[in-house]
Amino acid sequence: MRPLTDLSRLSLNQATTQNWSLKQAVDGCARAGIPWFGPWRHKVAETGLSAGAQIIRDAGLKVSSLCRGGFFPAATVAERQARIEDNRRAIDEAAELGTDVLVLVCGPAPDRNIQAAREMVRDGIAELLPYAREHGVKLAIEPLHPMFAADRSVIVTLGQALDIAEQFDAQVGVAIDVYHVWWDPEVYPQIERAAGRILGFHVNDWLVPTPDILLGRGMMGDGVIELRRLRAAVEQAGYSGPIEVEIFNQAIWDADGDAVLTQMCERYLEHV
Amino acid sequence: MRPLTDLSRLSLNQATTQNWSLKQAVDGCARAGIPWFGPWRHKVAETGLSAGAQIIRDAGLKVSSLCRGGFFPAATVAERQARIEDNRRAIDEAAELGTDVLVLVCGPAPDRNIQAAREMVRDGIAELLPYAREHGVKLAIEPLHPMFAADRSVIVTLGQALDIAEQFDAQVGVAIDVYHVWWDPEVYPQIERAAGRILGFHVNDWLVPTPDILLGRGMMGDGVIELRRLRAAVEQAGYSGPIEVEIFNQAIWDADGDAVLTQMCERYLEHV
Repeated sequence: MRPLTDLSRLSLNQATTQNWSLKQAVDGCARAGIPWFGPWRHKVAETGLSAGAQIIRDAGLKVSSLCRGGFFPAATVAERQARIEDNRRAIDEAAELGTDVLVLVCGPAPDRNIQAAREMVRDGIAELLPYAREHGVKLAIEPLHPMFAADRSVIVTLGQALDIAEQFDAQVGVAIDVYHVWWDPEVYPQIERAAGRILGFHVNDWLVPTPDILLGRGMMGDGVIELRRLRAAVEQAGYSGPIEVEIFNQAIWDADGDAVLTQMCERYLEHV
Repeated sequence: MRPLTDLSRLSLNQATTQNWSLKQAVDGCARAGIPWFGPWRHKVAETGLSAGAQIIRDAGLKVSSLCRGGFFPAATVAERQARIEDNRRAIDEAAELGTDVLVLVCGPAPDRNIQAAREMVRDGIAELLPYAREHGVKLAIEPLHPMFAADRSVIVTLGQALDIAEQFDAQVGVAIDVYHVWWDPEVYPQIERAAGRILGFHVNDWLVPTPDILLGRGMMGDGVIELRRLRAAVEQAGYSGPIEVEIFNQAIWDADGDAVLTQMCERYLEHV
């Protein structure tokens, strides 16, 4: 497990710098020497899609993925159809921004029947797939930590994400975020199983104690996750693409953005 | 999935009434017509073991389990040995209190190596087992929700708990708490697999949003867990023992204890 020796695979996921506009985040990456960028749709919308895409191109950044599509389950057919429509717009946006990866946060159940909601996720992906293929965008199912099972994603393990992805061709894969999977006794065999379908790898850390359910993620090295071992496993499974740093943490959001990016680069080389 | 028609299997896990002493909790059960009681060691210690056991016996309550042993992983051999000694005391206490079930919360890792800590859990149970057998106390591994993987238990799924339990005879089993397992895509096949090893079943609910990582559990019916379906699965797997209500929730702790027990009985019949 050798350290990374340069920043050539490092990507800033925009969630890490929530208080920056898209332009500020892109400029920050350029100053810090970070070659990849992972935008979020709501931040792109603030700037405008075409203008945002132009800003990223002008800075010479590559786009690692777009966050996020998904949220497939809903109580009615009409609502589920509206979600599909929104996902088609997300695919358009990914294509215009110049990435071939749309990250899917699959959504919660509309009621207590989590099993039925899981079937809605599978069905939603099946319905979305032809449009994604036409536009050259791959769908990356991101299993979320089980503590988000009730409000963000009924897909909560890598094995479960792969059970769905494997029902389709390689246009459907997975995004692996260490925060969501590190606890899983099956994580290493499931990463091995994911070979050929890994579309993204996200890093951050699990703090002890966790300060907040949603905004409690840590900077790499400040927590307990075996980051380098997980990176080695993902590489062993054939993934050599960008590594996004995605940290939801109020204190990091409130800090100086350039200082956060400087620390992020140091910790990436030291811990990932 | 028929409702329960009486309170004959209902147990008050003492964590639900944190502000009550053992005597107050026992008296509360007697007033509410709750026939079972699940004490915690630190509350028993406040009263004294012999006195506490006598209070429970005098009230005619049956003891469903003792919470808790476990916390096996530690950085040094000496520390791990001290944990085993403490678990032996927990077995003594369970026997004196008149229950044959000691619930094990297995503990966190002492460092980033979660896999090594999981082996320490297995080794700790192996070392404890002869003493447990001599004293007629079964060891119930309780898988905790993965959000507690870093600070309370490296054992986070029912499947993983069974992987350990099955290395031993039926003196080692599992305690299934709906809060910890409801999200798991494998929960129903794993409950089926657990047949013959289910030593406890705990109920409460998962609130949306979750107000707190540790103290955010809800009263049955206030959240999203399919309680009755899970009870049916546990019964299908052969479990017909007591059903403990275990709710860590600051608002419930601060409420009037008798009112909590009254609501608990109603919700048990309505939702479990």
